[in-house]
Amino acid sequence: MANSLLPEHLLVGRDAGQTAAVYVTPSVQVGGDTPIVMAGPCSVESWDQIITAAREVAAAGAHVLRGGAYKPRTSPYSFQGLGDEGLALLSEAGAAVGLPIVTEVMDARDVERVGRRAHLLQVGARNMQNFTLLKELGRCDRPVLLKRGMAATLEEWLLAAEYVLAGGNPRVILCERGSRGFETYTRGTLDLGVAVAARGLSHLPVIADPSHAAGRAELVAPLARAAVAAGLDGVIVEVHPNPEQALSDGAQSLTPLQFRQLLRELGAVAARQRQPAAATA
Amino acid sequence: MANSLLPEHLLVGRDAGQTAAVYVTPSVQVGGDTPIVMAGPCSVESWDQIITAAREVAAAGAHVLRGGAYKPRTSPYSFQGLGDEGLALLSEAGAAVGLPIVTEVMDARDVERVGRRAHLLQVGARNMQNFTLLKELGRCDRPVLLKRGMAATLEEWLLAAEYVLAGGNPRVILCERGSRGFETYTRGTLDLGVAVAARGLSHLPVIADPSHAAGRAELVAPLARAAVAAGLDGVIVEVHPNPEQALSDGAQSLTPLQFRQLLRELGAVAARQRQPAAATA
Amino acid sequence: MANSLLPEHLLVGRDAGQTAAVYVTPSVQVGGDTPIVMAGPCSVESWDQIITAAREVAAAGAHVLRGGAYKPRTSPYSFQGLGDEGLALLSEAGAAVGLPIVTEVMDARDVERVGRRAHLLQVGARNMQNFTLLKELGRCDRPVLLKRGMAATLEEWLLAAEYVLAGGNPRVILCERGSRGFETYTRGTLDLGVAVAARGLSHLPVIADPSHAAGRAELVAPLARAAVAAGLDGVIVEVHPNPEQALSDGAQSLTPLQFRQLLRELGAVAARQRQPAAATA
Amino acid sequence: MANSLLPEHLLVGRDAGQTAAVYVTPSVQVGGDTPIVMAGPCSVESWDQIITAAREVAAAGAHVLRGGAYKPRTSPYSFQGLGDEGLALLSEAGAAVGLPIVTEVMDARDVERVGRRAHLLQVGARNMQNFTLLKELGRCDRPVLLKRGMAATLEEWLLAAEYVLAGGNPRVILCERGSRGFETYTRGTLDLGVAVAARGLSHLPVIADPSHAAGRAELVAPLARAAVAAGLDGVIVEVHPNPEQALSDGAQSLTPLQFRQLLRELGAVAARQRQPAAATA
Repeated sequence: MANSLLPEHLLVGRDAGQTAAVYVTPSVQVGGDTPIVMAGPCSVESWDQIITAAREVAAAGAHVLRGGAYKPRTSPYSFQGLGDEGLALLSEAGAAVGLPIVTEVMDARDVERVGRRAHLLQVGARNMQNFTLLKELGRCDRPVLLKRGMAATLEEWLLAAEYVLAGGNPRVILCERGSRGFETYTRGTLDLGVAVAARGLSHLPVIADPSHAAGRAELVAPLARAAVAAGLDGVIVEVHPNPEQALSDGAQSLTPLQFRQLLRELGAVAARQRQPAAATA
Repeated sequence: MANSLLPEHLLVGRDAGQTAAVYVTPSVQVGGDTPIVMAGPCSVESWDQIITAAREVAAAGAHVLRGGAYKPRTSPYSFQGLGDEGLALLSEAGAAVGLPIVTEVMDARDVERVGRRAHLLQVGARNMQNFTLLKELGRCDRPVLLKRGMAATLEEWLLAAEYVLAGGNPRVILCERGSRGFETYTRGTLDLGVAVAARGLSHLPVIADPSHAAGRAELVAPLARAAVAAGLDGVIVEVHPNPEQALSDGAQSLTPLQFRQLLRELGAVAARQRQPAAATA
Repeated sequence: MANSLLPEHLLVGRDAGQTAAVYVTPSVQVGGDTPIVMAGPCSVESWDQIITAAREVAAAGAHVLRGGAYKPRTSPYSFQGLGDEGLALLSEAGAAVGLPIVTEVMDARDVERVGRRAHLLQVGARNMQNFTLLKELGRCDRPVLLKRGMAATLEEWLLAAEYVLAGGNPRVILCERGSRGFETYTRGTLDLGVAVAARGLSHLPVIADPSHAAGRAELVAPLARAAVAAGLDGVIVEVHPNPEQALSDGAQSLTPLQFRQLLRELGAVAARQRQPAAATA
Repeated sequence: MANSLLPEHLLVGRDAGQTAAVYVTPSVQVGGDTPIVMAGPCSVESWDQIITAAREVAAAGAHVLRGGAYKPRTSPYSFQGLGDEGLALLSEAGAAVGLPIVTEVMDARDVERVGRRAHLLQVGARNMQNFTLLKELGRCDRPVLLKRGMAATLEEWLLAAEYVLAGGNPRVILCERGSRGFETYTRGTLDLGVAVAARGLSHLPVIADPSHAAGRAELVAPLARAAVAAGLDGVIVEVHPNPEQALSDGAQSLTPLQFRQLLRELGAVAARQRQPAAATA
């Protein structure tokens, strides 16, 4: 790397700026020509909820179905997710609509079991420096979606990815989900500058999570369009059949209708974005 | 305003979400259908420098020429700008290429004098809560470009604008320029979520300053595209004929070549952005 | 300075770590052996209020009377202080109880007039980089209390002081008042580490403002004791005869009774603090 | 709890403000009348190093020996600690000088094994919301030292403790170690306001870690004195026989000589602090 942020020998830095696509399935590549959209509810709540969500996001054009089965919740008394049952429901719903699934894994002891069903394993922001978990993911054969911690520096984020690569698993997708600051109107601040920088300093694809960054549904679409226009490789968005009744993150979830509208907008931004500049003059 | 952030009666909140264009000149409106681009060097350094910069940004398609004459510098021993002479040079350069000019005013006592030459008066981030200055600007007949403070909340930003409106001057353009956080790789974090929210909670147009947010030239174009894709009303960008020799902010200044490329990209993003969604399906 | 934060030649850095006392009056020196206590209401509200407050804080042992006449308020519709009348009342009250007074000056045009009555001129956090004001204070013959901006770095704070010193006024007292972060339970975070560092990197005395940092009365005494134990040169504390009826900052104001208790505690901390370590073994 | 931050029913909130001492051993109680001092090197590096450190801190009067065996390091290529061997050395050194030991546990699978040797199990800042680990600690019979995350709110911190209490382990000591912000001169900002608030909103004892907060040895003693003066229940401090040769955190480690001096100062602050206010008048 030309840049002095990181030591020369890092695996994440090899061929910096030459994004190497990560295949979630043979037909879904993150880091290729098309921005990838992952979508679904914050938590899997029931079969009806997840299959409805899955059908809606698949119909709208999403590439990956998301859903939480094991939830990291601030309070021990909040809904903690449906666990193994939630994962089974998510897996069935994904299969039913033909989409691969991404879900969070919190416990190193669960990596193998969750990896049997999920195509992409998410590390949440709170666990970005859970080195036990990162090392375990370095030994598994599933791609990893590594969210940036709420107060993690660019260097810490890339070095967290290095833990997975150094363990033998080269398939890491980075995800910027908003950093924590003094502003209380939004849940976080989507740091597109650092996301673009991470994409330039490494060969890893980088996506954005505008839902958690904004914490408000009306800001999700503008931030998602911004992420794609900035050149990121996709977005992960929360969509719920009925946001007002969601057990978690309802305020930031899009309705299926809003999501369809967003995908049309993203297509437009992306189409322009990928054309050679000369052609647009 | 439906939203509870601000009291009902605020002038900035009247017709919230219905952006009322601010005319910098009869032909340059900020908040209309076309994203506006303001560009030029951080500081006016010499006639050669500013006229070269002016010609370049005009040729590329910028709408307003920027340049600092009175500079707020952290150290009293740093270059403080050329002052009145700088303003005269900027004014001449703008006139020569047919662009209106924007420059920062730091001292309430300078408002009238600077306003005689500048078409748009900028309040810098450090002065966002310089209430003396805001009140003076409320009494002048020039439009005001009000930058968000580095650690100002959305509420504080809108209430700073309210000072100008309450003083009798309705023509305020907001500008998000990056908030200050823990990350050191970039100079700040461009907070597009709050910028979009400010546009929705008020009738004021909102632009972004990706140059100060990023602090690195290579991140300016991605962030500028993101700002326009998010629906903001334009960008203000630092362009220098020779960034390596700039007396201030060289690391974040675009070359004229990079700027021309950026304007092509912005045109593409904006064209798509403004089309009715149905037409893009 | 041994430390590389600042250039060698700075006036603030001369004899770094050797605090040179600033005399507010011939008998009140900040930076000497005794921690100084400045106290009084956030705003001067009436003669009854300020004379009651003045008597209480004088009786408890405070060294300087504080009170705001010109208030920097986030909203233009909030109480803006009594202005000149407030200053006159503060001046009379201070004289009546034999205490010098400190008050904030916001406008460079007011420096001379306010300086005729106030013994110590305060620069508020929002104006720390109001260079117009700093330059004017560099030309006056009153000592200056320079609050650290809510998001100002140590370097920026010291360089703001340098503006005053470079203008010809050597009498600057620094004041840490809490930096802005993600925590919402408190108003800010009192940054004693940076305050102690500022005292070591310069020859300027440094005090703390636990009232604005905490924003909650019950945290003021613990933070004030902490500031003195850390070796700072004093504190500035908000005291109101009747906090529940205060026009501003009531939630963080101490009652006279709480303030007397605090002064007893500070005396104890300071007495121990200043003894040679050997004597305490 | 009178305060509205937390729901009424929380275990951490029971008898808020009435600190219930946590016994590390029958003779070392945290939260009693005497501030407790935990000290030792960042990492256990060798037998010579840890026994020397242990003798020094014991001779100076420390109550608990600290030392890292399993280290959470930002880079996978940094020294990761000696692991089981490090824990064995720490245990022997503690026994040799008659001090209980505290060490960090990072992996839920290690809780039982580490708990067999360590008297107090530390959760590091990066793992404050590692809920897998917290739940495991809720099932063990060792007291837990729970560090506040670098960007964790007061509410999140107390709810992380609630995970341990809800699991059946009532013995939690909170530790404030500096929050992350924009300042780069120090490593973090010791947030004594929130630490005091945590002590008031819960019955848990609270200590401070000035070493990690400051990141600079010269600021450790002032911050440690401040923590005790603010009324916290103790401090945890890094001490190394030879800081310049430390494998980690050398810049913030005290020498044994500096540590002895600090303990004298803390004794003085604490003696005064604990006396009834009336007696000090």
